[in-house]
Amino acid sequence: MPKAVVSKSSKESSVSASLAKSGAKKLSRNGGAQPVSTKKSAASKYVYFFGGGKADGRAEMKNLLGGKGANLAEMTNIGLPVPPGFTITTEVCTYYYDNQLTYPKSLFEKDIPAALKKMEQLLGKKFGDAKNPLLVSVRSGARASMPGMMDTILNLGLNDETVAGLARLSGNERFAWDCYRRFVQMYGDVVLGLKPQNKKDIDPFEAIIESEKHERGIENDTALTADDLKDLVVKFKRAIKERTGNDFPTNPVEQLRGAIGAVFGSWNNDRAIVYRRMNNIPADWGTACNVQAMAFGNLGENSGTGVAFTRDPATGENIFYGEYLMNAQGEDVVAGTRTPLKISELQRTNAEIYAQLEKIRKTLEKHYKEMMDIEFTIEQGQLFMLQCRVGKRTGFAAIKIALDMKDEKLISEKEALMRIEPEQLNQLLRPIFDSKEKREASEKGRLMAKGLNAGPGAATGKVYFNASDAEDAAQRGERVILVRIETSPEDIRGMAVAEGILTARGGMTSHAALVARQMGKVCVAGCEPLEISYENSRMKVRGKDFLIREGDYISIDGSTGEVFEGEITTKPSEVAQVLFQKSLKPEQSEVYRMYDRLMQWADKYRRLKIRTNADQPDQAAHALAFGAEGIGLCRTEHMFFGGDRIDAVREMILASDEAGRRAALAKILPYQRVDFYGIFKAMNGLPVTIRLIDPPLHEFLPHSEKEQRDLAAKVHKTFEEVHQRVESLHEFNPMLGFRGCRLGIIFPEITEMQTRAILEAACNAQKDGIVVKPEIMIPLIGTTKELELQAKLIHEVAAKVFTEKGRTVSYMVGTMIEVPRAALTAGEIAGVAEFFSFGTNDLTQMTLGLSRDDAGRFLPFYVEKEIYARDPFETIDQQGVGKLMQMASSDGRKTNPKLKLGICGEHGGEPASVEFCHKIGLDYVSCSPFRVPVARLAAARAALR
Amino acid sequence: MPKAVVSKSSKESSVSASLAKSGAKKLSRNGGAQPVSTKKSAASKYVYFFGGGKADGRAEMKNLLGGKGANLAEMTNIGLPVPPGFTITTEVCTYYYDNQLTYPKSLFEKDIPAALKKMEQLLGKKFGDAKNPLLVSVRSGARASMPGMMDTILNLGLNDETVAGLARLSGNERFAWDCYRRFVQMYGDVVLGLKPQNKKDIDPFEAIIESEKHERGIENDTALTADDLKDLVVKFKRAIKERTGNDFPTNPVEQLRGAIGAVFGSWNNDRAIVYRRMNNIPADWGTACNVQAMAFGNLGENSGTGVAFTRDPATGENIFYGEYLMNAQGEDVVAGTRTPLKISELQRTNAEIYAQLEKIRKTLEKHYKEMMDIEFTIEQGQLFMLQCRVGKRTGFAAIKIALDMKDEKLISEKEALMRIEPEQLNQLLRPIFDSKEKREASEKGRLMAKGLNAGPGAATGKVYFNASDAEDAAQRGERVILVRIETSPEDIRGMAVAEGILTARGGMTSHAALVARQMGKVCVAGCEPLEISYENSRMKVRGKDFLIREGDYISIDGSTGEVFEGEITTKPSEVAQVLFQKSLKPEQSEVYRMYDRLMQWADKYRRLKIRTNADQPDQAAHALAFGAEGIGLCRTEHMFFGGDRIDAVREMILASDEAGRRAALAKILPYQRVDFYGIFKAMNGLPVTIRLIDPPLHEFLPHSEKEQRDLAAKVHKTFEEVHQRVESLHEFNPMLGFRGCRLGIIFPEITEMQTRAILEAACNAQKDGIVVKPEIMIPLIGTTKELELQAKLIHEVAAKVFTEKGRTVSYMVGTMIEVPRAALTAGEIAGVAEFFSFGTNDLTQMTLGLSRDDAGRFLPFYVEKEIYARDPFETIDQQGVGKLMQMASSDGRKTNPKLKLGICGEHGGEPASVEFCHKIGLDYVSCSPFRVPVARLAAARAALR
Repeated sequence: MPKAVVSKSSKESSVSASLAKSGAKKLSRNGGAQPVSTKKSAASKYVYFFGGGKADGRAEMKNLLGGKGANLAEMTNIGLPVPPGFTITTEVCTYYYDNQLTYPKSLFEKDIPAALKKMEQLLGKKFGDAKNPLLVSVRSGARASMPGMMDTILNLGLNDETVAGLARLSGNERFAWDCYRRFVQMYGDVVLGLKPQNKKDIDPFEAIIESEKHERGIENDTALTADDLKDLVVKFKRAIKERTGNDFPTNPVEQLRGAIGAVFGSWNNDRAIVYRRMNNIPADWGTACNVQAMAFGNLGENSGTGVAFTRDPATGENIFYGEYLMNAQGEDVVAGTRTPLKISELQRTNAEIYAQLEKIRKTLEKHYKEMMDIEFTIEQGQLFMLQCRVGKRTGFAAIKIALDMKDEKLISEKEALMRIEPEQLNQLLRPIFDSKEKREASEKGRLMAKGLNAGPGAATGKVYFNASDAEDAAQRGERVILVRIETSPEDIRGMAVAEGILTARGGMTSHAALVARQMGKVCVAGCEPLEISYENSRMKVRGKDFLIREGDYISIDGSTGEVFEGEITTKPSEVAQVLFQKSLKPEQSEVYRMYDRLMQWADKYRRLKIRTNADQPDQAAHALAFGAEGIGLCRTEHMFFGGDRIDAVREMILASDEAGRRAALAKILPYQRVDFYGIFKAMNGLPVTIRLIDPPLHEFLPHSEKEQRDLAAKVHKTFEEVHQRVESLHEFNPMLGFRGCRLGIIFPEITEMQTRAILEAACNAQKDGIVVKPEIMIPLIGTTKELELQAKLIHEVAAKVFTEKGRTVSYMVGTMIEVPRAALTAGEIAGVAEFFSFGTNDLTQMTLGLSRDDAGRFLPFYVEKEIYARDPFETIDQQGVGKLMQMASSDGRKTNPKLKLGICGEHGGEPASVEFCHKIGLDYVSCSPFRVPVARLAAARAALR
Repeated sequence: MPKAVVSKSSKESSVSASLAKSGAKKLSRNGGAQPVSTKKSAASKYVYFFGGGKADGRAEMKNLLGGKGANLAEMTNIGLPVPPGFTITTEVCTYYYDNQLTYPKSLFEKDIPAALKKMEQLLGKKFGDAKNPLLVSVRSGARASMPGMMDTILNLGLNDETVAGLARLSGNERFAWDCYRRFVQMYGDVVLGLKPQNKKDIDPFEAIIESEKHERGIENDTALTADDLKDLVVKFKRAIKERTGNDFPTNPVEQLRGAIGAVFGSWNNDRAIVYRRMNNIPADWGTACNVQAMAFGNLGENSGTGVAFTRDPATGENIFYGEYLMNAQGEDVVAGTRTPLKISELQRTNAEIYAQLEKIRKTLEKHYKEMMDIEFTIEQGQLFMLQCRVGKRTGFAAIKIALDMKDEKLISEKEALMRIEPEQLNQLLRPIFDSKEKREASEKGRLMAKGLNAGPGAATGKVYFNASDAEDAAQRGERVILVRIETSPEDIRGMAVAEGILTARGGMTSHAALVARQMGKVCVAGCEPLEISYENSRMKVRGKDFLIREGDYISIDGSTGEVFEGEITTKPSEVAQVLFQKSLKPEQSEVYRMYDRLMQWADKYRRLKIRTNADQPDQAAHALAFGAEGIGLCRTEHMFFGGDRIDAVREMILASDEAGRRAALAKILPYQRVDFYGIFKAMNGLPVTIRLIDPPLHEFLPHSEKEQRDLAAKVHKTFEEVHQRVESLHEFNPMLGFRGCRLGIIFPEITEMQTRAILEAACNAQKDGIVVKPEIMIPLIGTTKELELQAKLIHEVAAKVFTEKGRTVSYMVGTMIEVPRAALTAGEIAGVAEFFSFGTNDLTQMTLGLSRDDAGRFLPFYVEKEIYARDPFETIDQQGVGKLMQMASSDGRKTNPKLKLGICGEHGGEPASVEFCHKIGLDYVSCSPFRVPVARLAAARAALR
């Protein structure tokens, strides 16, 4: 294409006129800035030209032109050197599928010939011309990037005549024939369907090349001479004739028609369908097809090709980051057969081209106000841009780039916030593995299995299979990974001392996952291949040779779900070092300063308050450091497991009458009062929502015979009595059983004790100068009457406590909305409740009829098949659960306009759910301490959107 | 009161004028026929007079006058001999409680004196007059009958002077003093509060009587002379003075004021509060207070008193049915110290009075168009009516009376239908115990325990504790009662052969209860006191001495929940003898003919279709005989337990891959095809809704080690493999687990097999001339996508089957709506579903977060405390579950106006739920075969209401 730019100026005026005309036409049809997204109409424009400094399309027209086509047009318009060409719209693709694989009449009769003619005029070449042939690439390009999923054909336009012209023009016969043989091969594979469907079968063209090399006694393709290549072309064509019964098409127009059909056809190949399903890309979007003049990077040492990012995509640093190879085509850079050079090298070897690229980099960033990913080709010293798109980046880079671009005044604060996916924040917050050690571990086959990435971060330590062994080991100063088939509240203390938690069963919201996230622990849950034997204190991995005994080291990555044999060094996040360990000062950590700026911006725009789910003062302190504005869920029963309390709790459950229960409850009261005092103190001035006891009582009782015997001795009962009581508390569906407010209705003395503990603690704290704002929350309310009964009891106890203490504390009484019926009757319930807190974990389970502990058998498949668009335990099912939330919010506020609304389910820290909560008008979201920063950012983005 | 009527005529005109005036006043205030039910207004009329052939009130004014007062007014108006009096309205009661127990100003100043004056004028007596004293009774009378709950004072107006007048007038001094001493005693007890609150304490007046009798050396009250009685009055008064510090009030007006206060006060005594709570009577209704001239039935042998029904309340027969005693007061008839005579006797002994009563009976029935319950008194040969109200009756009598009254043209067909509570129909349909034997069993202490009346009817037989022993015993010709701690699908065959089923655990919709009702079996479920030991094959009753071993007789009453030791003779219903046993011809059974007429009438008016839940051809046949118009729920998995099928089912579950599952499914296919053929044949021409497999797979696997070992041997696996598979299928909350359509989504081959079996059977049946209307129902749908996937599969299989069979059968594909999310997204689901069937059992469990198997610990308390107005598993929770049903129906029909809507939960046979289903526009309800008649009647009543 050496003459392309030369010929451009001579043709410019007529081309401009032509382009201007078509541009006017387009504008009159589209009206404004919105891209054409309606389905084809009679007046559709099917082909969008770009070249000669002007393009029919522009970046915003991705829906119609695909990402690649739209950006080729945009680059053309902003004056970057783009080889001319045209884009056949996605509407043609849709038309093609809607009309038995045919095209609109004008496409090949008028639109494409006209576009080709413009290319010819701009380049001074001619399609099919033996002397100065125009060669083109034909590439797919959908609205969303689908890398490698669809087909591409290069060097189209070559045949036995034009190959000679190319040889002449390039002065390189071998190059010309290599192009030709590549084209025939590619065309044969892709358009004529010779590529084997089964990966095990060999490509017929590769077989021919192999036999040719064998005949010639050579090893590398590069050793093939021009004559060898000519011979290959002959053989390739013969193979095509044999296999298809037809000659290889020599007419470039016929070649082009075939290639366009292949590109549209590849929209529905198996790979593409699977990819679309995985990425939620609708089938009816279709792909565009880009036909563009070829630029050759393999025309000698003053040619080359490269890919680059306008900033470092890993660190976000504002440097030009990329690689290139001279005398090479794009695939060579990617293939890794030759080691590409760093882009900085180009500055040394070809300062002029580098300067051009640097200028383009600046232009692009200034124009797109984004970090861009580009592809370029140098053809005999001339630079061509072949692609640009927004560059993918790590979470860390995303944050740094957004902050830097704000400082560079490329974007505003608001735009910066919208550039960062809230989940990306985690990369600033979590301990991580030393990446080199981790890669080595993988390479050495130490990756044992993969489970669910339930609690992000990296942890390494010695394996213990039960909570008390884990505690002992931690006492000895060991780092511990607690490994359980599944966890239960009895394991809490073991989990608290562990670096990480690994379970073989349970989903993303299993007990282990929930508690781990709340504690900020690393957790891999539901790692099904693990075969754990408690008796032998060891685990194996199904189908593999690993054997891990108690005390052996393993390392788990809660961000990826990976489980490794042995130790891998971890590093805490700098944010944690500043905020909690105080081992780093803010000014010492750029990471912390980035985090802090971002949070300050987010707080400026968000409307939602962010609270945290915390049961202990230390959790509350962590959450506060992360910016929590209150506690949205303090689970009182988690406190039941500390110290000797569990004995009193068990005594209460085993009591045969109310007097016995009251005696046991009296022992628990002081513990709870101290806990609440600690939390009030930590949250001084901020609201604290305390949920009364929720789980079914059997969760507090031991299940093994030995434990039951021990317990019997402790509480002066026979083993049979204890055993009988445990059995009698067994439930078929505990989720729907005797729990939540039902406990407080049947045993009001429990509610009394808990209320007393809360309000006595509140009075004591207030006396000590602490500002307390207790909000007492009743779980599992399904009817107004339940709430009435419990609220009445609470108010009675409150009156007593205030009289005894001689002071009054203002408090609220409200309810979880977690039973569908509560949402359905929220209008009535709001007549009694002062606040609602959506318990979306249970609300999801009941609304979807889906036990999170049992769904493992089908939920992954359901998500994969898009039966649920996303895991409903990860993000709120807006259509079902969300509808109930919306009804409840609006009905509740109708009754009680002052009703405070919040969410305390795990969804409270998930960005899409936070946005939904903002949209339906909640006052706050509450999430585990380590999700608070994510929720702050998500809330800001929701407000800005 | 001998002069009452004599004096009446002389005063008539002035009284009439006075009454006319007040009547006019009343009419102008009330305007129309509606009773005054608004709370007191400034212009309220507090006292309604009746007497002299005219009354201010009338029967419709129950809300204001109470039942008794309204009917006294009505009887007066229709010319019956009612002693004159007046009713103080319920509004006064409400006023009394709203205003610190005070009365409206005019009440005692104006209204009561005026009414008393009218009474005096009518009767020619005077209140407090020593010569001719007016004596009155003061009685409560609420809107709804609350028998015996509130207080009554008789003979008011007596004092030391008036008692002499009464003695003179009656010519019986002893009578007069007996009246007086009774009055002082009653007044002392009720108004002055001397009656001990604690039942163990003795009434002070009774103590005085006892000591008097002891002194006099006599045994019976009747032996006390006039002087004795005078002495008693003195002692009574002294006791009053001692206890209260006040003298007994001698002023009749003061007495009256006290008595009225006591009546209003008794509205809030403990008994009344409990009764109201049990019967859903609002506290703010209040009671009226009736003050009426006394009529004495104890004035000698030409006096008397009686109670009667205008028809036989037990059989409904059109005969005058009642009892009387001469020379007695009302309480003597009830007390049972003297044996009352049959009313027919009166015809012989006092033809004139009898003729009057007969005439009144006719008048009342003609006027009220109802069977009435009356109280009358004969005072010295003169008849007075003291009370009339609609008579309570057995279900049987209700039906007979309604049918007869229609024939007598007293009421229309529609009114007849509205007179019968659908549940009353059961009395025509169920086997029953011989009532004499049952009473004897109770008297002899053979009543062991009481459980839930889960499957109505009576059954007696030998106890067996497991299904296979039960089957063996039935084989030997024994009658069997299957006793289980709880049942599971494995027990089905044992249940099928049993006369009755008794379980220690589970609620009204437990497996045992559900299956029993569907099979029409007698069932007592959740009989908690039973202590069943499978190992020892015996049961005990907690806290009692019973010991029942395998093979011992017991008898269970599924209509009352009673469980008896030993045998009690049972009788099948005549309807069953005609319809199923064919041992009786319609013309031989009046009961059957009544049933049949009623059903014909019901069918004329109902809009809802009635279908049945049936899994087997014989159940279908029963339901058809009961008038079912299709099958609304055929549970295919119940078929999995017949014969050897369970082996194939288990093989399928244990298969390690799809091929293994398909091989096992191929064995099940022919069984299912035969089953479906049988059902299609039985239902020839009627729609049959077949639900694909629903329960979690573990329900099909054995749980004991022995059974697992046997199974392992059968399927050529190791015990460990089988055991491991059973363990791995364990679920925490199976209700929300891997079941319903989730099975068919993960294992499409199950859906394929079931669809094939259904449609092959349908083709075969059609070939044999049977008209088939299969409706394939997918359970547990929560998302549209699930239904799409399953529907697609079904249509594919259908196309194959139709090609193979060379014929086409029209069929529908629809879904259960039983997951809340399905109801919430019904608008979308209706785009795919051809019908919805509300599975209200599971919908209730999920919407309320309430496991029916586990709710036993709190549900009874919840119902008692009215946290749920009624058991939500018995009747649809209209506010919660009903709201979802309404949403789903209306959203579904918006998308698909042809959408067929039905219900197949247990609620489909419960009258209030049937009415709700009618109201929200369902097309049909489906219930167990034995509920079909009840549903037909309920549907008709819903349409008529």
